[in-house]
Amino acid sequence: MSSDLHFGNLSVSIFGESHGKGIGVVIQGLPGGCEIDFEKVLDFMARRAPKKDGISTRRNEKDYPEIMSGYLNGKTTGTPLAAVIMNTDQHSADYNNISAVARPGHADYTGYERYNGANDIRGGGHFSGRITAPLVFAGAVCAQILEQKGISCGAHILSIGNVWDNRFDSVNISKEFLDEIKAKDFPVIDSETEFLMKQEVADASGRLDSIGGRIECAVVGMPAGVGSPMFDGIENRISQAVFGIPAVKGIEFGRGFGFADMCGSEANDPFTTDGKTIKTTTNNNGGILGGITNGMPIVFTAAIKPTPSIAQPQQTVDYIKMENTVLEIKGRHDACIVPRAVPVVEAAANIALLSFLV
Amino acid sequence: MSSDLHFGNLSVSIFGESHGKGIGVVIQGLPGGCEIDFEKVLDFMARRAPKKDGISTRRNEKDYPEIMSGYLNGKTTGTPLAAVIMNTDQHSADYNNISAVARPGHADYTGYERYNGANDIRGGGHFSGRITAPLVFAGAVCAQILEQKGISCGAHILSIGNVWDNRFDSVNISKEFLDEIKAKDFPVIDSETEFLMKQEVADASGRLDSIGGRIECAVVGMPAGVGSPMFDGIENRISQAVFGIPAVKGIEFGRGFGFADMCGSEANDPFTTDGKTIKTTTNNNGGILGGITNGMPIVFTAAIKPTPSIAQPQQTVDYIKMENTVLEIKGRHDACIVPRAVPVVEAAANIALLSFLV
Amino acid sequence: MSSDLHFGNLSVSIFGESHGKGIGVVIQGLPGGCEIDFEKVLDFMARRAPKKDGISTRRNEKDYPEIMSGYLNGKTTGTPLAAVIMNTDQHSADYNNISAVARPGHADYTGYERYNGANDIRGGGHFSGRITAPLVFAGAVCAQILEQKGISCGAHILSIGNVWDNRFDSVNISKEFLDEIKAKDFPVIDSETEFLMKQEVADASGRLDSIGGRIECAVVGMPAGVGSPMFDGIENRISQAVFGIPAVKGIEFGRGFGFADMCGSEANDPFTTDGKTIKTTTNNNGGILGGITNGMPIVFTAAIKPTPSIAQPQQTVDYIKMENTVLEIKGRHDACIVPRAVPVVEAAANIALLSFLV
Amino acid sequence: MSSDLHFGNLSVSIFGESHGKGIGVVIQGLPGGCEIDFEKVLDFMARRAPKKDGISTRRNEKDYPEIMSGYLNGKTTGTPLAAVIMNTDQHSADYNNISAVARPGHADYTGYERYNGANDIRGGGHFSGRITAPLVFAGAVCAQILEQKGISCGAHILSIGNVWDNRFDSVNISKEFLDEIKAKDFPVIDSETEFLMKQEVADASGRLDSIGGRIECAVVGMPAGVGSPMFDGIENRISQAVFGIPAVKGIEFGRGFGFADMCGSEANDPFTTDGKTIKTTTNNNGGILGGITNGMPIVFTAAIKPTPSIAQPQQTVDYIKMENTVLEIKGRHDACIVPRAVPVVEAAANIALLSFLV
Repeated sequence: MSSDLHFGNLSVSIFGESHGKGIGVVIQGLPGGCEIDFEKVLDFMARRAPKKDGISTRRNEKDYPEIMSGYLNGKTTGTPLAAVIMNTDQHSADYNNISAVARPGHADYTGYERYNGANDIRGGGHFSGRITAPLVFAGAVCAQILEQKGISCGAHILSIGNVWDNRFDSVNISKEFLDEIKAKDFPVIDSETEFLMKQEVADASGRLDSIGGRIECAVVGMPAGVGSPMFDGIENRISQAVFGIPAVKGIEFGRGFGFADMCGSEANDPFTTDGKTIKTTTNNNGGILGGITNGMPIVFTAAIKPTPSIAQPQQTVDYIKMENTVLEIKGRHDACIVPRAVPVVEAAANIALLSFLV
Repeated sequence: MSSDLHFGNLSVSIFGESHGKGIGVVIQGLPGGCEIDFEKVLDFMARRAPKKDGISTRRNEKDYPEIMSGYLNGKTTGTPLAAVIMNTDQHSADYNNISAVARPGHADYTGYERYNGANDIRGGGHFSGRITAPLVFAGAVCAQILEQKGISCGAHILSIGNVWDNRFDSVNISKEFLDEIKAKDFPVIDSETEFLMKQEVADASGRLDSIGGRIECAVVGMPAGVGSPMFDGIENRISQAVFGIPAVKGIEFGRGFGFADMCGSEANDPFTTDGKTIKTTTNNNGGILGGITNGMPIVFTAAIKPTPSIAQPQQTVDYIKMENTVLEIKGRHDACIVPRAVPVVEAAANIALLSFLV
Repeated sequence: MSSDLHFGNLSVSIFGESHGKGIGVVIQGLPGGCEIDFEKVLDFMARRAPKKDGISTRRNEKDYPEIMSGYLNGKTTGTPLAAVIMNTDQHSADYNNISAVARPGHADYTGYERYNGANDIRGGGHFSGRITAPLVFAGAVCAQILEQKGISCGAHILSIGNVWDNRFDSVNISKEFLDEIKAKDFPVIDSETEFLMKQEVADASGRLDSIGGRIECAVVGMPAGVGSPMFDGIENRISQAVFGIPAVKGIEFGRGFGFADMCGSEANDPFTTDGKTIKTTTNNNGGILGGITNGMPIVFTAAIKPTPSIAQPQQTVDYIKMENTVLEIKGRHDACIVPRAVPVVEAAANIALLSFLV
Repeated sequence: MSSDLHFGNLSVSIFGESHGKGIGVVIQGLPGGCEIDFEKVLDFMARRAPKKDGISTRRNEKDYPEIMSGYLNGKTTGTPLAAVIMNTDQHSADYNNISAVARPGHADYTGYERYNGANDIRGGGHFSGRITAPLVFAGAVCAQILEQKGISCGAHILSIGNVWDNRFDSVNISKEFLDEIKAKDFPVIDSETEFLMKQEVADASGRLDSIGGRIECAVVGMPAGVGSPMFDGIENRISQAVFGIPAVKGIEFGRGFGFADMCGSEANDPFTTDGKTIKTTTNNNGGILGGITNGMPIVFTAAIKPTPSIAQPQQTVDYIKMENTVLEIKGRHDACIVPRAVPVVEAAANIALLSFLV
């Protein structure tokens, strides 16, 4: 297996190469009869599309998903749902000088070793960030089914470089708040950070460099008792899905690495009840205990590495000639992919979560 | 599924409850004819056993794995390898007062919701840290097969509370160095931190509290080209396995969350060659690019939350009576499980890695 | 993977070798709180045990399953259910002359090739029919959960040699009828065939030979709409499970191979309704259309090959010396395993069916 | 899951509905760098396409697979291989009268129950035989990779109605012989049966009826020692894949159901060696012992039920109105799908077999 997830009764198989004919996804195991608003799917995907804001690449991607099957009269048919995005408007000339020269931080060399040199390296091939478009499609579909069950997922930019947004209020966050964030062009809680973050990106870009960041994601409405201990719990499935996003190099749930510096008396979330429902007064565990939801918001954070494609000369090797060389990457690249990765992280989470409910 | 991993041709199914009859594991898909030194397996498991050092619980666990099948004349038979550890020496009286009172930070309440109240809660049941013993057994077996392929995995305590050990030299770390660390009673690189870390634990214990930490794990000898993009790569499988360890709340590969604060020009690991092999001069990516190994050491760090069992009174609920109450946990509990979790993290990594090679 | 089934949210992992320490099974994914009458499980397993009727081997197997986990106070806990049957009373001397001489019809040679000569060949090792005991345990547990949902499964000997029992009335068969058959020592519909079938076996035995047969299995109470098209339907899962039984070499659903000689006008099962429920007036399709149940009884038949262990001299090879040789198998062996395979077929079906409902 | 196979490291996900936008398949886990002759893939698929011979439907299907990804410069890239066949030339008017009237023998009613009435029923939707086109595509790709390993698979019509072809010589069959059969327009061993079989079909057609048959499939070149005992052996995977073909209702390996009437002394295949290789002098077991290949040809037979679509009036129900009614199916339908199913059976076998070798 490779670019497919198998989560209980749900599976997602993604395909495509950056400069191939098309990219897409097949989702198996969706229930029949779920209403899916296709326009909302496009809106979700548009959040991932490159912006005209100076941050993202100016390549004009027309990521229009054509649904091949599994969708009729506005509803899932229950049989496999497949979508294809045809590739257009490619400038493969930009990539001409990469040939067997490994771009540092990219999967050129590892892909070469993995696939006996046969993989399509144009534009990063299957390793391209572009392949997250079908992942977002799948996540957008799952999100709507989750919403119908009262479950909402939303993410924001937690940090870019040294600029930090506020964290979610992990105890009191609401669907309305998540919707508000998701509606923003630049998804941050504290709007004042937008300018500062963009500045960080512009600075990096000006230095012919790139910059990383963090994305925080929350899910509300998930009932208690969902998940499993050990290997098939909420954390396992979300992490397996989220590490499917190129550039993600870390994930933490609730306080995550912050737990390492805490005492049990601070870390343990006290339970409380009004006689009807059970809550915790803090939510350091990010809504998950023993791999299973406790009814509080699920909260996790993903670390996004800086885009490896930078315009500075970089020391590297030609892995066929086995020679050291210097690489200058041409073409336009995002100096920071964190904003575009926000809906991708949500998408991965939506898939993982729905898998527990079908 | 639940407490079983299915990684390509390898699967691992773990069972058991803390106070049940026995705990154990079945490993399917091991090659036949691999030499396994049973004493070395016991040594590996002993690293997880509670120490007489004042840090770990004084319960006398006799975690002797009886091999039921799959092992003959010192070798794997290739058919399923199963081991059972019979439970003995239980003091369930210690747990008498937990009944339906949820221990904060534990899975009592989530397990209740998940299993309709039917799960065995004595001693944490299947959620108990004790269930990691068979995980370690499985990892110890996988480790020996990996070693025969020239691949070694080792971990150390990176931090406990505010005390930090040195990090691995992610470029130059050797099998010998890992062996040295693993041979230590208290696995740290800088021996001087041992005293300080133990002090942190003793302090926490004295405050009737507990404390968390970080474990860093490295793998050397893994050839380039192993893994897959997207959902079935090195990061996906390791994270799915490592989140199977209770108390792990975060994982990062290479620089992980540190990437979020870096520029591409620092983060990208330059490739270099001597004409024969390819290396990177830094190893921020922890040996993984696009989910696939690049031949450099694989390095990851896991966040361990403080033991939820603390002797202080804690606010919580009785989830059957639906009443608020105060809980005092009796019995002896580790004030810090980080040292004992070190071989467990290694075990999870060994299983994940071997799965790519069988 | 190998001796484990992964069906959606349910997985079953079987281990053990005939002359090893123990055999057993781990079931993951059972719901919590299902009542399991352990005595009934033993009764189910006793149906598989060798009879004192002259047909089955006189080895005195004490297949007592010790439940290690997953079962408390008469109910499933929801966490992994594991059972171990310790091996006792072995006469490995009987098998001394097999060494590297391949028993025709057995898996000695294929196991040798598969496992690099490392597999345990004593008594057939993991390929032994004895390994079906834990399969029956798992099936017996699943059967009780199915019964609580109103679903019953039962099988009978359809043929041994040239003697045929009646077929199930695939339209009108009832739970009561299945219960009646299952209560019989020799499970046939037409009691008069018992004597004739036993005669066939005795004849074969007298000729130092063995004999095969057919088992027909039916399931009542399964609602319409369960299953999936293509690769994950009722037929796929049942066949994957039933071919897990050594000696099964064919399976057919409903009329199965008989369909090959039919016309559509005979084969199509006409639907009919009383305004409340939908039935078919015939049930050639064995309750399955497009991989999905139609509410009629599920009916399938399995072909069982004659026991390969016969006392006649057989031409074969020593696969290490690479020499032709003649083999005489000593020890006592069933001349016909069809009667003992009846509950095993049921067990496999029960596992497959429950997997669609958890 | 549903229309996807997960076999170890290989997975195949099929999608599409008869009258939807497109049908297709994603194959994950193929090795990189395998040469695939696309023309040969088309040839394989053409064997499944309707013939102009009076037997098959005259619908003009243009099943041209567009490869979206995973194939470059005549080779697999190793990353997911996806193909889409756009649907054209549909006459959905022909199906207008089926609405909620269940066609007997079809999955209309079971699909309705399974998918809450939301599945696309036009032309059978996802249950249509047309969905086997992408299955054949996948099988054709796998077949070429197998051929490069010296493994060939071929099938023929064993029977239609009362007319039987010869069986394969299961001991001596060669790749050349299989190639010869596969090159035939009407794949039978004994050419004289072609006329008789076509007559059977014409007769059935004349009676406004349909007719079933058997397909025998053989695989040569598979080395000994491939497969696994119990649930993940050759028989398990082939049967899971082959039951993915609509209309298959039975499968048997080697002598299959014939074993039921045999004695062990006939059934056991004696081993013999020339000092270099091991063979069996008969091949009743169809090349498989204990789920593992023994180096002899793999042979199995599938039962194909008569096409349910017949032009005679049939008694059935309207499952929405819950009323009895009479159905007359209009449109042109194959009176016998056995000839077209031959390459589909091969395709399923090729996928299952390759999965053991990647």
